[in-house]
Amino acid sequence: MSAIGPEIERLIQLLAKLPGLGPRSARRAALDLLKKREVLMEPLALALTDAARAIKTCEICGNLDTASPCALCCDPRREGRVLCVVEDVADLWALERAGVFKGRYHVLGGALSALDGITPERLNVGSLIDRAKQGVEEIILAMNATVEGQTTAHYLLDALAETGVKVTRLAHGVPVGGELDYLDEGTLSAAFKARRSL
Amino acid sequence: MSAIGPEIERLIQLLAKLPGLGPRSARRAALDLLKKREVLMEPLALALTDAARAIKTCEICGNLDTASPCALCCDPRREGRVLCVVEDVADLWALERAGVFKGRYHVLGGALSALDGITPERLNVGSLIDRAKQGVEEIILAMNATVEGQTTAHYLLDALAETGVKVTRLAHGVPVGGELDYLDEGTLSAAFKARRSL
Repeated sequence: MSAIGPEIERLIQLLAKLPGLGPRSARRAALDLLKKREVLMEPLALALTDAARAIKTCEICGNLDTASPCALCCDPRREGRVLCVVEDVADLWALERAGVFKGRYHVLGGALSALDGITPERLNVGSLIDRAKQGVEEIILAMNATVEGQTTAHYLLDALAETGVKVTRLAHGVPVGGELDYLDEGTLSAAFKARRSL
Repeated sequence: MSAIGPEIERLIQLLAKLPGLGPRSARRAALDLLKKREVLMEPLALALTDAARAIKTCEICGNLDTASPCALCCDPRREGRVLCVVEDVADLWALERAGVFKGRYHVLGGALSALDGITPERLNVGSLIDRAKQGVEEIILAMNATVEGQTTAHYLLDALAETGVKVTRLAHGVPVGGELDYLDEGTLSAAFKARRSL
């Protein structure tokens, strides 16, 4: 007989499926939850139920929100003629935290990857091309600077050629606060090539 | 206006309170949950609700279980004359996973710490002394080998003196699979002092 009952065992197993938590940290998290039943465990159960019920995927851009179309797609103050294409909702959140972009988004839902079997058909590419044809003037490809991200960007550049829309990508270079000594050759080389006069 | 609605924001805030998850990994976890609503998010909400409702703290040993007294305290096959004192339920779980101990447990609920204001009154010390007086023959102090754990063990040794029960502690030494080169001086010194003839 195990010292851990089935209720706790099941909780640990589910927590261990979260990214960033392994079996050991899932046990710690479960124990912490059990110790903080009223201030953490029950509110978390409620927050999960609420979010699972309320959150929808936006039919236009693929963002997650309580409404579809999402608040970003419905916001009349956002520039509809500029689309920023991201791999994932997390990237959209990151750009919104930075507050640098005031246009609209398009969430692909991943990046092309032969290894993981992610083909263009599994990404929201068709809807991007449809949107590109509806009065869009610029499409910013904000993919990750990984092999998959850059492969996806190249693929999209080809796929979007027929629409005639201007396609741009984020600049590569030295991250703000970054030290040259710690940067890889690829970043340094990109930063050199894209150097600007002062 | 934030791109993250209040439901997701609240979920992220609660997830960030789990040990092992910071704000960034909580965002990743929330997003992962939202993408796996049916296979992960709803089952997790249910598991949390179930566990919060079902799990009690054992009135005898301080273990967490669906019943109080807990299954370990009620198991007639376990040796009631040997008590193993641990700081936390996680330590009890670890010992049960190892399957080395077939007596009963006593969970202190922490270790003495002047820094964190953990005094003997905040630990389950009184109930330990009461149990020690009821036909117990050996008390194994299985505290962590930290300053707090060892302080607690010394305190308990004094506090248990009046009961006349034999008090032991876990051996210190080289962990199984451990390489000497990577061990600290304290461990090496303890392993040397406790060396055994072959």
